[in-house]
Amino acid sequence: MDFATIRLEKAARQPLYRQLAEQLKTAIRRGELRQGEKLPPIRAWKDALGVSPVTATQAYEVLGAEGFATGQVGRGTYVQLPTVPPEIAPTEMLRDQAAAYATAPRSSGPLSDLTTYLKAPRSNQMQRFLQIALARYQSAPAAPADLIVMSSGSPAPELFALKRWRAAMLKAGESIEWDSSEDGGLNRQLQYGPALGDSATREWLADYLTRFGIRCDRDDVLLTSGSQQGLDLVARVFCGPGDAVLVESPSYVSALEIFEQRGVNWLPVALDAGGLSIEAIERLAERYHPRLLYLVPTAQSPTGLTMAAERRPRLVELARRYNFVIVEDDTCNEFYYGGPSTPATLKSYDTDGRVIYLKSFSKLIFPMLRFGAIVAQGLLFERLVEAKATFDRSISLPLARAVLKFAGQPAFEREVQQAGLIYRQRRDVFSESLERELGGTGCTWSRAEGGFSLLLSLPRGLRAEELHVEAAERGLAVLPGPVFYPSLPDAPENTVRLSFGDNSPERLTEAARRLGLAVRALQSRRLPTSPGFLAAV
Amino acid sequence: MDFATIRLEKAARQPLYRQLAEQLKTAIRRGELRQGEKLPPIRAWKDALGVSPVTATQAYEVLGAEGFATGQVGRGTYVQLPTVPPEIAPTEMLRDQAAAYATAPRSSGPLSDLTTYLKAPRSNQMQRFLQIALARYQSAPAAPADLIVMSSGSPAPELFALKRWRAAMLKAGESIEWDSSEDGGLNRQLQYGPALGDSATREWLADYLTRFGIRCDRDDVLLTSGSQQGLDLVARVFCGPGDAVLVESPSYVSALEIFEQRGVNWLPVALDAGGLSIEAIERLAERYHPRLLYLVPTAQSPTGLTMAAERRPRLVELARRYNFVIVEDDTCNEFYYGGPSTPATLKSYDTDGRVIYLKSFSKLIFPMLRFGAIVAQGLLFERLVEAKATFDRSISLPLARAVLKFAGQPAFEREVQQAGLIYRQRRDVFSESLERELGGTGCTWSRAEGGFSLLLSLPRGLRAEELHVEAAERGLAVLPGPVFYPSLPDAPENTVRLSFGDNSPERLTEAARRLGLAVRALQSRRLPTSPGFLAAV
Repeated sequence: MDFATIRLEKAARQPLYRQLAEQLKTAIRRGELRQGEKLPPIRAWKDALGVSPVTATQAYEVLGAEGFATGQVGRGTYVQLPTVPPEIAPTEMLRDQAAAYATAPRSSGPLSDLTTYLKAPRSNQMQRFLQIALARYQSAPAAPADLIVMSSGSPAPELFALKRWRAAMLKAGESIEWDSSEDGGLNRQLQYGPALGDSATREWLADYLTRFGIRCDRDDVLLTSGSQQGLDLVARVFCGPGDAVLVESPSYVSALEIFEQRGVNWLPVALDAGGLSIEAIERLAERYHPRLLYLVPTAQSPTGLTMAAERRPRLVELARRYNFVIVEDDTCNEFYYGGPSTPATLKSYDTDGRVIYLKSFSKLIFPMLRFGAIVAQGLLFERLVEAKATFDRSISLPLARAVLKFAGQPAFEREVQQAGLIYRQRRDVFSESLERELGGTGCTWSRAEGGFSLLLSLPRGLRAEELHVEAAERGLAVLPGPVFYPSLPDAPENTVRLSFGDNSPERLTEAARRLGLAVRALQSRRLPTSPGFLAAV
Repeated sequence: MDFATIRLEKAARQPLYRQLAEQLKTAIRRGELRQGEKLPPIRAWKDALGVSPVTATQAYEVLGAEGFATGQVGRGTYVQLPTVPPEIAPTEMLRDQAAAYATAPRSSGPLSDLTTYLKAPRSNQMQRFLQIALARYQSAPAAPADLIVMSSGSPAPELFALKRWRAAMLKAGESIEWDSSEDGGLNRQLQYGPALGDSATREWLADYLTRFGIRCDRDDVLLTSGSQQGLDLVARVFCGPGDAVLVESPSYVSALEIFEQRGVNWLPVALDAGGLSIEAIERLAERYHPRLLYLVPTAQSPTGLTMAAERRPRLVELARRYNFVIVEDDTCNEFYYGGPSTPATLKSYDTDGRVIYLKSFSKLIFPMLRFGAIVAQGLLFERLVEAKATFDRSISLPLARAVLKFAGQPAFEREVQQAGLIYRQRRDVFSESLERELGGTGCTWSRAEGGFSLLLSLPRGLRAEELHVEAAERGLAVLPGPVFYPSLPDAPENTVRLSFGDNSPERLTEAARRLGLAVRALQSRRLPTSPGFLAAV
């Protein structure tokens, strides 16, 4: 502990003990104070900084109360990383990386002192990996002529129906010009309007969602600029510093980022082939009284797993019993490959308005569309609508109307169905190629039942970051998995996300071949020190 | 103080003294504990709730440190409303109203316990006034056949160029379909892209803004879904609980709402005919070290006042000296009536990247467009871009492109100029009508040099809420002014906002007539107890 980094101001509004506690918390988050490290004894503060024993004791009490330290009188106080519930033992592996996520280096100076409220986003980390891959690829002497990018998570751009989109924009413009409907006639509807957004578009969307077992009407639908904004509204209404939030581990990186900006404490829950374990959730709910569970029950991100149908009503029942909110992120329901029909949504089992359903159209139309929706009822919905009105007023009317004119057509349903078949074929081709190329390496991977990605696990002893470099030099960009884990100290260092959605079958076959070469190269280099590999041979 | 409302939980993460302090702060915000009220003595907590003297003392210390209470040992602790800087004496008048804004009544129950992070927005108050006006109008026996609404602050819908908007949407659709430019070719630009938004639109906007003295290029421009989102990003990056923020008093209601959601402490600065007083800002800056100043220097909301040209460079210099950020909200620059040309923007005097410029197109195109921009540089800009990426990714590409195709045409400039002349005429007609109808009543009003509204001050003794009812019964909806004041206990109770932008000259003449009737009716009823009125006669 370097006392010189602590700055206490007597004249500040915040009491000294609170200032001290906050700065220690920051040091813990940054990894300057590590898990298990002993904090300086109370008297040391007096000697080093003139801080009174009472103040130092109060500061340590705050750390204890907020889950940043543990201790017993006479035995000292020890750092405890805050996002890991005590019953899940933290590992040592990714401590440095956790610290890197928590606060990236920031420049200092008078202006930078004014920008302290935004934490370094996880997505910076994703960009960094792509940059490293590109640099490695470009400097590799034997790299192939093309780089295959499997790190995007994006839909296939060749499937965007742009001719129809153009027609939809034209029709939307016309509808605005001539419409003199309920909203008060020509032009009136272009004034500051209701936060829910265009009612004709909500009407269509309420009907569209019935296919997922959702019974709602247009006044239960809040249009948002994508499900990312939906997540942000949810996080701002329901979550604040220190609140316990249940989440799949691994999970959707943007959701992790948004909730972390609110200062939540994660309660990570591991996934099995049937999704979240109801028993694990119950144990955590009983102990930590979470406010919310965020999950992607269908075509989970990043694994592609889908929660078993029989677990779904049990989960909703559990939320009712332990009084938490379920946030169901249902981005890829239309792209499900696990059977003839997708299991019914959690929202379809909701009886008391505690399931908040988020829909995105980024994968169905195109990502830069920025259009999504929240479906909810009652009190929780009212608060979300208020938040939208306060922070962003409402969705753009021309945009909402263009979505209606595009997606409210029979052609849209055909296009989505067709796209689903294409993505499924890509998943099949890639899975088969992986079987062929990675057989005998000890690698395993999630069986993606939907969406665009799967999660690969390397055999013990191989690290994702090494494979990332090895693959880049062979012309393949992949994304190391740790960024998807809510509790970074627990993130296995051997997972890699592979996105197949925006690559052709030919490229996927080649990608698997390059991946196999990279894994085997890594293993051969590790041979002398890798008992895991020897055992597998 | 009713002890029964306090609930402390020994098992909670939060220490008891913090729980107690937070609940007392809530009671103060709600007005259950009033300015100057004495808090219970320390020992009373022991008797009533079993709270130890140490815990109660610590709780009071927190209140003191966070500006919610004052006290001296042995003399007791007294409630102090937190948003009022000590040198601005709070008035007693609007205390109840302040409490009403702070936390509107909310239903209780298990689900409502989960929705505690959103404060009741000020805009609820605005809606409430419109509802009251409608109800009063409908139930008034002698009300005229039509209600004239002067409470909207909206642009004139008959000026929206919808035929051109339709053509712009068509062209935008075409441009997306055929464009294979720098962004990586057809369809690639529809994938998750840079947070800044469509580069062609930014290119145009950077050029458009040169007319306001702003030198920037497209990479200094961040497209947002309206300047409301711009404000939200600014508030989230730069402001947190307890931070001091300078603001015009009165100010733009949505800005007040957004910053208040971040828990800032307002430093309100009064306006004179030349806008903010530089000396007043300097006094506050010296004493309170604000992080930020939010203002609308041109066509201020709600007064229509414009900051004198000679004050502008001095203000930017002051921000540099005291290291605060200036947020310049420039919504109505195009609708300026104070002279042949608008004074140069504050941004045009910025040399070290501390002026953040917000532009809106809600008044220039139409409000439900939801399109705006932030212009900034360097470190502050980087953080804002990160925040946009984290919370909302980026602006919709089709929407941004439609704005480009609409506003990047010579016709747009002509339309805006034409609209400016029409609004100016409305301002003139309304001002003249006010002179005629309110002469001799003692009313005064701001000379709107831009925008759509002015602020009327009633003679002493008349209250805005009474006029609001009186006017509604005569077929005129107005908006009481207190909602526009950052420090509600200081809000004068005699101001009313009148929006002339979306009413024809004929209706404005009639509106002034009805207003005159309402004011005189109020005065005649007040006659026996109103020395102010007698003195004026």
